[in-house]
Amino acid sequence: MKYPIVKLNKRGVKKYLENHLWFSSQEIFQFEKIKNEIPAGSLVNITSEDNFFLGCGYFNPKSYYSLKLLTKENIVIDEEFFLKRFSKAMELRKIFYPKESCFRLIFSEGDFLPGLIIDIYENVAVVQIQTLGMEKLKDFIITALKKLFDFKAIVLKNDSSKRLEEGLELYIEIAYGKTEEIILAEMDEIKFLIPILKGQKSGFFLDQRENRRFIKNIAKNWIVLDGFSYIGAFAFYALKGGAKKAYLIDRSDFALGLAEEVAKINGYKDKIVPIQGDVLQILKNPPQSNLLILDPPAFIKTFKDIKAGEKKYENLYFLGIKALEKGFLFAFSCSYFLKLEKMKGIIKNSLKRLNKEGTIIFQGFQAPDHPINPSVEETFYLKGLGIYVQ
Amino acid sequence: MKYPIVKLNKRGVKKYLENHLWFSSQEIFQFEKIKNEIPAGSLVNITSEDNFFLGCGYFNPKSYYSLKLLTKENIVIDEEFFLKRFSKAMELRKIFYPKESCFRLIFSEGDFLPGLIIDIYENVAVVQIQTLGMEKLKDFIITALKKLFDFKAIVLKNDSSKRLEEGLELYIEIAYGKTEEIILAEMDEIKFLIPILKGQKSGFFLDQRENRRFIKNIAKNWIVLDGFSYIGAFAFYALKGGAKKAYLIDRSDFALGLAEEVAKINGYKDKIVPIQGDVLQILKNPPQSNLLILDPPAFIKTFKDIKAGEKKYENLYFLGIKALEKGFLFAFSCSYFLKLEKMKGIIKNSLKRLNKEGTIIFQGFQAPDHPINPSVEETFYLKGLGIYVQ
Repeated sequence: MKYPIVKLNKRGVKKYLENHLWFSSQEIFQFEKIKNEIPAGSLVNITSEDNFFLGCGYFNPKSYYSLKLLTKENIVIDEEFFLKRFSKAMELRKIFYPKESCFRLIFSEGDFLPGLIIDIYENVAVVQIQTLGMEKLKDFIITALKKLFDFKAIVLKNDSSKRLEEGLELYIEIAYGKTEEIILAEMDEIKFLIPILKGQKSGFFLDQRENRRFIKNIAKNWIVLDGFSYIGAFAFYALKGGAKKAYLIDRSDFALGLAEEVAKINGYKDKIVPIQGDVLQILKNPPQSNLLILDPPAFIKTFKDIKAGEKKYENLYFLGIKALEKGFLFAFSCSYFLKLEKMKGIIKNSLKRLNKEGTIIFQGFQAPDHPINPSVEETFYLKGLGIYVQ
Repeated sequence: MKYPIVKLNKRGVKKYLENHLWFSSQEIFQFEKIKNEIPAGSLVNITSEDNFFLGCGYFNPKSYYSLKLLTKENIVIDEEFFLKRFSKAMELRKIFYPKESCFRLIFSEGDFLPGLIIDIYENVAVVQIQTLGMEKLKDFIITALKKLFDFKAIVLKNDSSKRLEEGLELYIEIAYGKTEEIILAEMDEIKFLIPILKGQKSGFFLDQRENRRFIKNIAKNWIVLDGFSYIGAFAFYALKGGAKKAYLIDRSDFALGLAEEVAKINGYKDKIVPIQGDVLQILKNPPQSNLLILDPPAFIKTFKDIKAGEKKYENLYFLGIKALEKGFLFAFSCSYFLKLEKMKGIIKNSLKRLNKEGTIIFQGFQAPDHPINPSVEETFYLKGLGIYVQ
């Protein structure tokens, strides 16, 4: 297809050959010249300096990674392109989740579609667009989704602050069909209320599914403390698995209110104790429990936050282990910048400081509907350790 | 208790405070003097240089780590000691595996008992002793096991070459009761034949249980290649999950013969194809399959093997990805020295060399009945990556 041409310099081509999908101004040939010639957000053809065709992508000089690759083929980027990609992605999901009605259909670079995330809750698709280049392809995306499946509604949940860096405005919109603000969805025989318009991210955190299942399987008779509970997904999985009781701690009254509704629907009204407040404060004098789950928001969002963020994780996990007389701590991090080895070091060190004996009996990651692209390390972000304290 | 005293020097105390269980001659005060005074394999009391009590352990000057800690308490090491530890370990196993009849009861440092491994298959306990200190406690171990559970037999499977470094002989012995050489055991509704006397390790590899379960859940309609199959546990889990067919490749005729028996018992006689030979050779011209499992023996056994071993893993995983047109590779390593990040690098590089698109949809580890001791890094050894090639 005839798109404007962006050329990769040698360094860019090297990265391309490593299967990376992102290229900065330093990897683009004559960046200073083309940045004023090619409109921001344009689809472009990508070539080497000597005009060897490399692929198609989109260009936004305002973004640090100004060029993102969509395909190595010489094709048109249109609704057909997206429909093919969506079908491929669906095929993979149906292997892991053949009967599940809620799952992540598209995980950005993990599905070779930088800047696009699509979660499905029953018959509603919630789309998150993070880049200007993808925003301009919005109509193709919506049309392709409509062809893929008979959705009742397609929602654009475009309120992530990441969009600001791309020069995009924030908005939430029902792009197609009709939907309630909060929808009822079932996962692993638990009914949830998903606030697709007002909630965090797409309304729920699907990436924790396998980890929740693991906890469900061991939760019988334990007393749960679900820190940063949001609407309480970990707590409800544990209750489904036979936990006696669950404390849900979150700052958001809205999330805890929903959790109370969810408890009612599932018959756990008397088993949950919502506590509105700061997890770190409450952990200093915690309610008695022996199965702790700490799944905080990302404490490290950029390279610059690493030191301060690691301190926060140290503090949190330490308080978690301290709160346990005997039992389990499931400590999670969704910060790409917090490495698994560092997490283990924090756990080891906390056990030492508290003079406790503990072993790691679980290592969990993002669910398989959030595939990791080995060439884009940032796609591996969610980690969890299960620690058993004797 | 009055045992001979071994003192830790400052460096040793520091390591002790880090919760480590192993101490070398360089961490022991006046090692050259005591090495001739205290008989090899003795139980000892451990103190600091200024006589502060630190714990009990055993001493073997012939071993690189001459001192291993058994407890921080000042107690007698006897059958009561082992019975308490076994009961604690059983309690943890019953959380994860409440109904399972086969599991690892004791995983050495992961259960704070260096040098001791105990696997249970139905009503038979298979004990592996790796150190002289533990060998001398054999009678306590057997008596404690008899008190723990009404075992039909207790087997000492002491044929690991690790024992030679400790100056121990290799032997296999039925220490208590009676048992067949090969026993029938059921795991996840699959019947296995476990060669507890002649097989590898304790006769089976229990550490892969969770990974096998994962593969079982996605195996429907796939054609499996189980490389380094041993008696075919991965293959049979996949067949249980609905796989069409499974090729089992192993060097051992004995293992493949057992696999054929297992296939008969479970009704998979027509679905398996045993291939005796070298996986690396066969992968150069592999039978057509789309769900590959490569679970080789440890290619890196000591620090010195790292470079050569990494090359072997590179070669193996490369051939695995090459063999796949579209489908899954589950690549495992049980080498402590092969790090997870290195494995990901190998996968990334293989995809690049083969110009294939692939994502990581699974990261798996040793099962929870093989707890990781965060202070003894060597206890984290089993890693697996699931790669989906499009």
